Amino acid sequence: MRHILHTWTGMIEPELKAWRRELHQHAEVGFCEYVTTYFVYQKLQTLDFTLHIGKDVLDTKSRFGVPTQETLEEHEKRALEQGVPEAFLNQIRSGHTGVVATLDTGRKGNHIVLRFDIDALPIEEANEHTHIPSKEGFRSHNKGMMHACGHDGHTAIGLGIARFLHQHKDQLNGRYTLLFQPAEEGSRGANAMVAKGWLKDANLFLSGHLGIKSLPIGTIVAQTTGILATSKLDVEINGKTAHAGMSPHEGKNALLAASSMALALHSIAPHGEGATRINVGSLQAGTGRNIVPGDATLQLETRGATTIENQYMKEEAIRRIQGAASMYGVEAEVKVVGEGVTAETDSYWSKQIPKALVQSTVVKDVLPELKLNGSEDVTYMMRATQQAGGKAAYLIYGTPLTAGHHHRLFDFDEQALAVAVNALAYLICAENGEGILKI
Amino acid sequence: MRHILHTWTGMIEPELKAWRRELHQHAEVGFCEYVTTYFVYQKLQTLDFTLHIGKDVLDTKSRFGVPTQETLEEHEKRALEQGVPEAFLNQIRSGHTGVVATLDTGRKGNHIVLRFDIDALPIEEANEHTHIPSKEGFRSHNKGMMHACGHDGHTAIGLGIARFLHQHKDQLNGRYTLLFQPAEEGSRGANAMVAKGWLKDANLFLSGHLGIKSLPIGTIVAQTTGILATSKLDVEINGKTAHAGMSPHEGKNALLAASSMALALHSIAPHGEGATRINVGSLQAGTGRNIVPGDATLQLETRGATTIENQYMKEEAIRRIQGAASMYGVEAEVKVVGEGVTAETDSYWSKQIPKALVQSTVVKDVLPELKLNGSEDVTYMMRATQQAGGKAAYLIYGTPLTAGHHHRLFDFDEQALAVAVNALAYLICAENGEGILKI
Amino acid sequence: MRHILHTWTGMIEPELKAWRRELHQHAEVGFCEYVTTYFVYQKLQTLDFTLHIGKDVLDTKSRFGVPTQETLEEHEKRALEQGVPEAFLNQIRSGHTGVVATLDTGRKGNHIVLRFDIDALPIEEANEHTHIPSKEGFRSHNKGMMHACGHDGHTAIGLGIARFLHQHKDQLNGRYTLLFQPAEEGSRGANAMVAKGWLKDANLFLSGHLGIKSLPIGTIVAQTTGILATSKLDVEINGKTAHAGMSPHEGKNALLAASSMALALHSIAPHGEGATRINVGSLQAGTGRNIVPGDATLQLETRGATTIENQYMKEEAIRRIQGAASMYGVEAEVKVVGEGVTAETDSYWSKQIPKALVQSTVVKDVLPELKLNGSEDVTYMMRATQQAGGKAAYLIYGTPLTAGHHHRLFDFDEQALAVAVNALAYLICAENGEGILKI
Amino acid sequence: MRHILHTWTGMIEPELKAWRRELHQHAEVGFCEYVTTYFVYQKLQTLDFTLHIGKDVLDTKSRFGVPTQETLEEHEKRALEQGVPEAFLNQIRSGHTGVVATLDTGRKGNHIVLRFDIDALPIEEANEHTHIPSKEGFRSHNKGMMHACGHDGHTAIGLGIARFLHQHKDQLNGRYTLLFQPAEEGSRGANAMVAKGWLKDANLFLSGHLGIKSLPIGTIVAQTTGILATSKLDVEINGKTAHAGMSPHEGKNALLAASSMALALHSIAPHGEGATRINVGSLQAGTGRNIVPGDATLQLETRGATTIENQYMKEEAIRRIQGAASMYGVEAEVKVVGEGVTAETDSYWSKQIPKALVQSTVVKDVLPELKLNGSEDVTYMMRATQQAGGKAAYLIYGTPLTAGHHHRLFDFDEQALAVAVNALAYLICAENGEGILKI
Repeated sequence: MRHILHTWTGMIEPELKAWRRELHQHAEVGFCEYVTTYFVYQKLQTLDFTLHIGKDVLDTKSRFGVPTQETLEEHEKRALEQGVPEAFLNQIRSGHTGVVATLDTGRKGNHIVLRFDIDALPIEEANEHTHIPSKEGFRSHNKGMMHACGHDGHTAIGLGIARFLHQHKDQLNGRYTLLFQPAEEGSRGANAMVAKGWLKDANLFLSGHLGIKSLPIGTIVAQTTGILATSKLDVEINGKTAHAGMSPHEGKNALLAASSMALALHSIAPHGEGATRINVGSLQAGTGRNIVPGDATLQLETRGATTIENQYMKEEAIRRIQGAASMYGVEAEVKVVGEGVTAETDSYWSKQIPKALVQSTVVKDVLPELKLNGSEDVTYMMRATQQAGGKAAYLIYGTPLTAGHHHRLFDFDEQALAVAVNALAYLICAENGEGILKI
Repeated sequence: MRHILHTWTGMIEPELKAWRRELHQHAEVGFCEYVTTYFVYQKLQTLDFTLHIGKDVLDTKSRFGVPTQETLEEHEKRALEQGVPEAFLNQIRSGHTGVVATLDTGRKGNHIVLRFDIDALPIEEANEHTHIPSKEGFRSHNKGMMHACGHDGHTAIGLGIARFLHQHKDQLNGRYTLLFQPAEEGSRGANAMVAKGWLKDANLFLSGHLGIKSLPIGTIVAQTTGILATSKLDVEINGKTAHAGMSPHEGKNALLAASSMALALHSIAPHGEGATRINVGSLQAGTGRNIVPGDATLQLETRGATTIENQYMKEEAIRRIQGAASMYGVEAEVKVVGEGVTAETDSYWSKQIPKALVQSTVVKDVLPELKLNGSEDVTYMMRATQQAGGKAAYLIYGTPLTAGHHHRLFDFDEQALAVAVNALAYLICAENGEGILKI
Repeated sequence: MRHILHTWTGMIEPELKAWRRELHQHAEVGFCEYVTTYFVYQKLQTLDFTLHIGKDVLDTKSRFGVPTQETLEEHEKRALEQGVPEAFLNQIRSGHTGVVATLDTGRKGNHIVLRFDIDALPIEEANEHTHIPSKEGFRSHNKGMMHACGHDGHTAIGLGIARFLHQHKDQLNGRYTLLFQPAEEGSRGANAMVAKGWLKDANLFLSGHLGIKSLPIGTIVAQTTGILATSKLDVEINGKTAHAGMSPHEGKNALLAASSMALALHSIAPHGEGATRINVGSLQAGTGRNIVPGDATLQLETRGATTIENQYMKEEAIRRIQGAASMYGVEAEVKVVGEGVTAETDSYWSKQIPKALVQSTVVKDVLPELKLNGSEDVTYMMRATQQAGGKAAYLIYGTPLTAGHHHRLFDFDEQALAVAVNALAYLICAENGEGILKI
Repeated sequence: MRHILHTWTGMIEPELKAWRRELHQHAEVGFCEYVTTYFVYQKLQTLDFTLHIGKDVLDTKSRFGVPTQETLEEHEKRALEQGVPEAFLNQIRSGHTGVVATLDTGRKGNHIVLRFDIDALPIEEANEHTHIPSKEGFRSHNKGMMHACGHDGHTAIGLGIARFLHQHKDQLNGRYTLLFQPAEEGSRGANAMVAKGWLKDANLFLSGHLGIKSLPIGTIVAQTTGILATSKLDVEINGKTAHAGMSPHEGKNALLAASSMALALHSIAPHGEGATRINVGSLQAGTGRNIVPGDATLQLETRGATTIENQYMKEEAIRRIQGAASMYGVEAEVKVVGEGVTAETDSYWSKQIPKALVQSTVVKDVLPELKLNGSEDVTYMMRATQQAGGKAAYLIYGTPLTAGHHHRLFDFDEQALAVAVNALAYLICAENGEGILKI
């Protein structure tokens, strides 16, 4: 006999898929998720949650890497054109995106905090017929922005869990906080939610990611290791323009300085003690073909297995940036626009997750551990939970992938959405609703 | 006693300055000079010229480096907003900018063709108080576009010469063609005017440039040498994006390939036989900070004292671009978007100019020769003139400069405008209006 | 009461130190260890071993990266000058260095193979007074060659174990093979010993390294993980010289190609699945200051956690070498001159080592595992042992270090020598001489 | 009827060729021309000259870029082995090579100074059968040293002129000084001869070069322009070695710093006002393959049309060297080891040369001017002559070339030797021996 949660999962599945597809079309980059925020808000409005938006969600000054006012205003204009009411927009302007939904059953029990990240990436989505979002008509409407990391799925999972809590609240104990977090990419948003105090009395914290390494549908990973510490740096280079034919010797070439930086940054030696990464993700230099380029900008990130390795990479990066600048006689200003820490999942959950999911018929397999080798600013929330005496977990929801994360052909199998919701529901029941599991 | 041309020059001076300042505010890059074209057209409309615009001016297919349709449309939208009537715009859409004005006195005489280039550069103009356009309120209205090479002055000089011809047409012989040429920067526009046949029966050709090397006001250089042959190349690089933390090894890094290209291109050995130049003027690579960059573009130019040196640079450049691409496992497509040839000024003018200007009290000094070390697509017109049996000259109109050409602080002394008009008027009179000179 | 092995260790200690210091002065690079080989041979000659040298030790063709005949001859000349008898030298000429010593007790028991590497590095040893070999007068006599990786200590340990076996042979069972291996640096020698069949019936295999990570004296690590697979590549670049002033354009610059290679090689993205390394250890380019460099050579190595990661690095390296060559119009020839595989230590030893060493009063602490992040061609021998059904271990002998391995100030604490010998002796006894332990 | 000088030229021709071929075999690099110096000395000893060697020839401290004592001693050892008597060698040790030969006719007349450079290049000479020195058995005996710039020919021409002066001294007036200068390559030797005062009362100065640009045999160029100012720099880089596998992050990579320098140096923008050059002629970095390279050296030179352009290049070079060093956290020390100035040939000679050579039947053609685009430390001597009120000329002796200067296949047509001697003899006669010409 199948458990009641199996049936419920089956019922929610079509909606999860529909939500995900609508979100996919509205892909919006970090702190510009105005349409996404409004969409989440609308879906939650009819349910039994207290909703928080704008400056209640994020501490303004604790955000990292907020876009320029000019960029934010362009996106706000776009949001208005795409149907966000002006009154709503006014509450979340200037990059105060994201939603927090809270629910108190009034009964004793754990305070469970769940987090879902909602932002997309600055990638132009593939338009090939083999790419399902393109073939089935839900490709991103927003030029140069794409859900290429599955956060559209994470948001849909969050909406699914909200529905589950709403429908089962009478059988559940304790309290619930759902964090729909903006700007995970670039490790920019989590810190600002933590600073607002949302984790300060969390007993249990749960979050997760769709599809690392193409695992089969039905697989859940209980413990994600290898979440890398990270720093995000912006570099602004000022040289001097000159006529490239008549007086090249009068220029101070910002483009060559930037190119030299990029090569030198990517040739930083790996640290012998643990994994390191560097990526110059963007380089923009020069204006006209016949002008010695006087300006350039770089966006880069460093990562390390722990804060030690990341710090090594960051310091070495700054040294090389300044060295390359002095090499070409230009000025370089380096700004830290994001920082991510390391955090470890609690062994409590490593044991609890396989135990709780054993009953599920949707979850076919629970792997004990997987190494991410990526960064996730969820670590700020995990750390805050642990500092408050709570237990944090970060799961992987298995799914085959069509292409790697951050690739223009990235896509996942939508069946994974229901599996994720089912797994989280089982974990919630195991902690705060044993009654449901006994049915 | 001062000659009548001296008096006339004094009268036109305030207008030259006013025109120049208005043009300066409407700085527009090549093939996007919609407002500038309309401005020139309006000023000429009330004078005794036959005016030609749109596809009469330029041979559509002979233009080099026309911007994308999308960019052109943005500029056309801007032009409408800035007051260009839709009916006029429709005649010059899709980069058919520039004006040709012809005048036939009906009397025997030389066919004198004069050329004035009208385009600006993609540079954000300085906003310091020390920068006169900023201080005196005629800084460019157009973000990211600036007259940093004095073509606003050239256009004003052209309007001044038009006024001169109009006012003195009864005392002049022969025929006149005034070419207001778009897209000189990047050597993109002249070829398309030549292809339309405007030089096919030119006896005499005159053009010039304001302010090479900060000469004093009143100085005219009779012969410009060292006009370099040039090629303009666009490079499009396609690699493969990947998650920079989880799977950097799956990426094909277009940004590093582009950086490596830039360094390798700038390290091409100079040619032992004559001057060479290379400039990677723009490099745009990558999208997001945590994505291995999958795309990049470069805009570059090569130059050489003659076609041999330029050809060497161009071939070497292409070899390095392809080598760097294969080094990083990416694809690079190279497009030639502009070509400039060398041309020499005719000794006829070297002798004639000092002789004709000796009467001028405005022109204080005539230098026989100056080396440009730059490229100028006027060479297409000079060559066409010479092929038709005519004689071509390219003058320098001396002026102190506040900063080098193509610098955000570039500015010239507006007194040079009247000197240039005066000099050209004397040359016209010497060839086709001896009567005026005798007065 | 202290065990008899404790007393024996104390007695051998002064000799270990003396041997090590003499070996230190005779530092010789791989396949050129003529003096070292003779030294080892002499010390073993008076003991109960059958000794093998020359082509009995190494399979000629299975050696990697043998120096040129010219280099070998220089070293052979040096060896003669330093006292190696010509008759002995004739047996080991052309890079047939190393010694194998075998001992058969005639009694049933395990065949235990122990391996000690004997080569030094091409580093000029420090001459500061703070550097003990310099202060105490045993600095390398050989210019540009230095024991900066502790193999002088390993060789001394091997001689100590030989003494132990010789002195206790009546109380021991089984058979013993001591491999004094040349050319470990560069992963060049082990394969040639394996090819000669020395491991073909090994039951148990033991080797180890002094001083990874400055552990305290008395510490033994039972299991070394993270031994990286590796490839060693030589690159020869042929361009074209030219006069740097008169005709730079006629050159094909091998130096710039090599420089560009070095940067591109060091910017290969790390593999997401496991550790990777690359090192261009040597670059020699050009001849005269005013000649466009026509030739260059590079020596480099790649490493990876497993053969997969190393293969990725190697392929990517070759791609970049060829790409940089085509970028500069030069030819590059790549030769693989060494390859190291990965191997894992057997869990048999992980359990056996702590158990056997518990009785030792010299060994203070046994750590279960340490990550090397280096390469060691001992892996060829470990793999051969395992293929023969035997069990292999690779230990770390703890010692503080004055500077990192391969540094000109590298030095270790000589007390570690006796600890290592003591530990190996206990392990031998535990396997083949229980009787001794019971005393 | 042919002039007597024609006949004399024909007689000396076989000897010129023989001398040149012997010198070619003894190719020796700058300040190491011990065998060459002895050869020249021997040939002059039987003639009527006062000979000067050693510290009489060169001011010890005014030499640039003297090799290390170690290198000098190796060459001195070689010279002994190659037959230079120890007593002679003792007078020219430590890089005091070169010979000065003086002759005073006792009669009034000009003091004519002639200069011949004698050094070779650090290039391994071609061994192909197509290379005449190889085919005809006079390839360089000295490994890695080659006369690839024709100074063997210059030296032979000097010996020819010595013979001419000796044989015709009774018909000649005035005084003669022949400077056989060491170390022209690298602009290192001339300054030290000037400092010794050899030019202090020169009325007329003559020197020249074989074969710029493959002119036909019989051609003489009267005036060489475009002799570039130059600086020669040595760079020593100190980083920190480390184990490339275990602790790459502890290294400071001198090889990557040097590679980055090389690329940055070669990408210095050309000067808009006149020709510039840079060449990193040698880069040596690193020791072992698995060691992060801790040391590197570079040898480079800059050049410029005038001292202004060269100074720009030199300053920019030093900036880039220091910038690259700080980029990689290494130390770089820059030493100036040579400097060459610009000098202009005197118009006196431009007129005199064509006039004087019109009688010669060996010289077929006198070109007024050729641009060298190279550096020559003869400029120190030309400047000293001019400062003393004298007139200096630098001729080109035309010859076809098999390959460019400084190429391993470089060779010239030996017929050019007699033409050069003939031309110089005519010039000497025109100034100091009209009588001979009248015969």
